[in-house]
Amino acid sequence: MAQNINRASAASPGPASNFSGSVQVTMLVAANPETDCIVSSVTFEPKARTFWHTHPNGQLLVVTKGTGYYQEKGKPIQIIHEGDSVTIPPQVTHWHGANPSGQFTHIAINPNVSKGGAVIWLQAVTDVEYNKVH
Amino acid sequence: MAQNINRASAASPGPASNFSGSVQVTMLVAANPETDCIVSSVTFEPKARTFWHTHPNGQLLVVTKGTGYYQEKGKPIQIIHEGDSVTIPPQVTHWHGANPSGQFTHIAINPNVSKGGAVIWLQAVTDVEYNKVH
Repeated sequence: MAQNINRASAASPGPASNFSGSVQVTMLVAANPETDCIVSSVTFEPKARTFWHTHPNGQLLVVTKGTGYYQEKGKPIQIIHEGDSVTIPPQVTHWHGANPSGQFTHIAINPNVSKGGAVIWLQAVTDVEYNKVH
Repeated sequence: MAQNINRASAASPGPASNFSGSVQVTMLVAANPETDCIVSSVTFEPKARTFWHTHPNGQLLVVTKGTGYYQEKGKPIQIIHEGDSVTIPPQVTHWHGANPSGQFTHIAINPNVSKGGAVIWLQAVTDVEYNKVH
């Protein structure tokens, strides 16, 4: 790693244990002691989404393409667009993913991953839950 | 801020006290207690660049458009492309910016900004320093 530069890497499929539908994950910054943040870009095909999950240290999302959904447990689904960001507090159960008709990409930033890890995966977001968008 | 969503905001010019040439900064995530990270997108016109500077807690760069330069003091200029990232250690004097002929954009992520701040600005990168690229 010359002068701490990480060259662009290929995407890999998001596992069916944590995602519904077709999802591609590109690692942008792997675990590193200099910042203790990891960064990835995630592309969701239409209707694809994460399972419900939490982050021990919170997470930031920055939408880089398309229109997506973000929902915290017990609250309405929010619609997010290119350039929007989401500040996800620690321990809050939530999911994110694409709208039904278009591809959606966000960057995900996880801070302080050496302290408690990056994510705790829960159950799938059902079609009934997904279709509750207004 | 409904469910912690920050809507896309307009770019503003990077100040001449910290940048050489034409630079536009878009704040993506402002200071927040949930993650203690701030995130911005920075677009440099050809030859535009930051001044030399350091980050008390390091910084991550993710190149989102074009080809740019990254240099740590005393080391050669490195060329970085779309999809590459840079892990900048705390306290290391460095600069980044566009190549001479094309626009360059990166996302910048600063962790733990409540602990010592995000950046300490130093002197300008001279044309002699900038032109030492190989």
